[in-house]
Amino acid sequence: MYSIFETAITVRPDDIDMNNHVHYSRYLDYILMARYDQMKKDYKVSMEEFVAQGYSWVASEVTIQYKRPILLQESVTVRTQVKNFHGAQALVSFWIVKGERAKIAAQGEICYTMVSLKSGRPTRIPDDIVEKYQV
Amino acid sequence: MYSIFETAITVRPDDIDMNNHVHYSRYLDYILMARYDQMKKDYKVSMEEFVAQGYSWVASEVTIQYKRPILLQESVTVRTQVKNFHGAQALVSFWIVKGERAKIAAQGEICYTMVSLKSGRPTRIPDDIVEKYQV
Amino acid sequence: MYSIFETAITVRPDDIDMNNHVHYSRYLDYILMARYDQMKKDYKVSMEEFVAQGYSWVASEVTIQYKRPILLQESVTVRTQVKNFHGAQALVSFWIVKGERAKIAAQGEICYTMVSLKSGRPTRIPDDIVEKYQV
Amino acid sequence: MYSIFETAITVRPDDIDMNNHVHYSRYLDYILMARYDQMKKDYKVSMEEFVAQGYSWVASEVTIQYKRPILLQESVTVRTQVKNFHGAQALVSFWIVKGERAKIAAQGEICYTMVSLKSGRPTRIPDDIVEKYQV
Repeated sequence: MYSIFETAITVRPDDIDMNNHVHYSRYLDYILMARYDQMKKDYKVSMEEFVAQGYSWVASEVTIQYKRPILLQESVTVRTQVKNFHGAQALVSFWIVKGERAKIAAQGEICYTMVSLKSGRPTRIPDDIVEKYQV
Repeated sequence: MYSIFETAITVRPDDIDMNNHVHYSRYLDYILMARYDQMKKDYKVSMEEFVAQGYSWVASEVTIQYKRPILLQESVTVRTQVKNFHGAQALVSFWIVKGERAKIAAQGEICYTMVSLKSGRPTRIPDDIVEKYQV
Repeated sequence: MYSIFETAITVRPDDIDMNNHVHYSRYLDYILMARYDQMKKDYKVSMEEFVAQGYSWVASEVTIQYKRPILLQESVTVRTQVKNFHGAQALVSFWIVKGERAKIAAQGEICYTMVSLKSGRPTRIPDDIVEKYQV
Repeated sequence: MYSIFETAITVRPDDIDMNNHVHYSRYLDYILMARYDQMKKDYKVSMEEFVAQGYSWVASEVTIQYKRPILLQESVTVRTQVKNFHGAQALVSFWIVKGERAKIAAQGEICYTMVSLKSGRPTRIPDDIVEKYQV
């Protein structure tokens, strides 16, 4: 079992769309923000270090269920948890929660694929990276 | 079987992210653009008319598979096709294709829920709306 | 002389463009975020209260000088200061600073016009609002 | 006197903000889109070629006056015209017009600075580039 990590997100006015909610595509931006933050803060391998080592992560599949709209003044937290590693892929669950009672605004899963920056192709996640994610 | 409709999208420089591809959340914006366009052009009920009748569509679930990156200078088309209607929900398949050979950049499904603007709650899709989508 | 207020901004990965800097239009989003934050925190009249009273602020002119690029990992602060009030307009200076030494990334002025939500037209800023901004 | 060139822009639903207008920062994205389009179409030196030659353009100052809001269903055209060249800088006037009667939604000027990608520093615009812009 992997840990659940979390990142607080500040909703910006430009995230709000004509329906007065956070725009549905911005949820993916919040998740990306959270993963960057957690790579650095929790896994201790920042995306920059990762890139410096010649690798990157790309989202290859996203499933997201929208449960409740998010308003401008609401506090938002993105929680993520690694579900498993398989070859070049890491499957990550996420929950976007809001307000004091941490109600679920959205939840889902993202499959990230590790790619070699040199070849642009998927690369088996090295053991030392998998190791770092064993938290 | 429902028709497949399509909408050409112009990639804008602000859609491109640090990886020199269209940013992964912008794909959802392209799909939304396509649905607005197709509601008007193909189903003959524009979102504005829909709203004037007291209804709106919200995305309640998105599944998207990213297959190939999209570059700034590439031509993009979003194809969508209704899969089925069920209560307040319409399930729509989409394909984002690029270039002359229409290679798939991304594909997936969106579940849209019809909501009443007055109550903010899901509303069974009326027969006359289902009718309009029988194309 | 009016006070200078400040708001910390978290740069998100989606703010970064193909040049690996914060995209030039996002600076305006950071300023808007700062004004919303400062209306609430410093002037004690949140935008929501303002709207509830039937008013809104719209940007009618922006002048911005870009001095230094902002990178993803940099800390950003937006400082703003009212310069003057005139009829329906408030002229506000801003500085977007970054890093520990608060180097200027961008600076400029925004002219905000107060509008009545009912008429959609500019409205002379009422004395009690001007009063609230005398800090 | 330099020519005025124009580019049609399709307003996307994600461009619309909580005020039901095109968000004020997206105007800068429309201008950038127009410049990219016109570099290729009108000046016959695409941004990609420019970059391949080791150069890029960065916006160093923007002045924009917002005159009328832009709604989702409105047609938008961005017109730009070079005003002058000076050292590393090109001063460009722009007008964002909308609807059949081409009413001005916004207008202003942008100062672009040519930079060398190698040094990251401003570079005097070479005569052959100035030549290409003599249309």
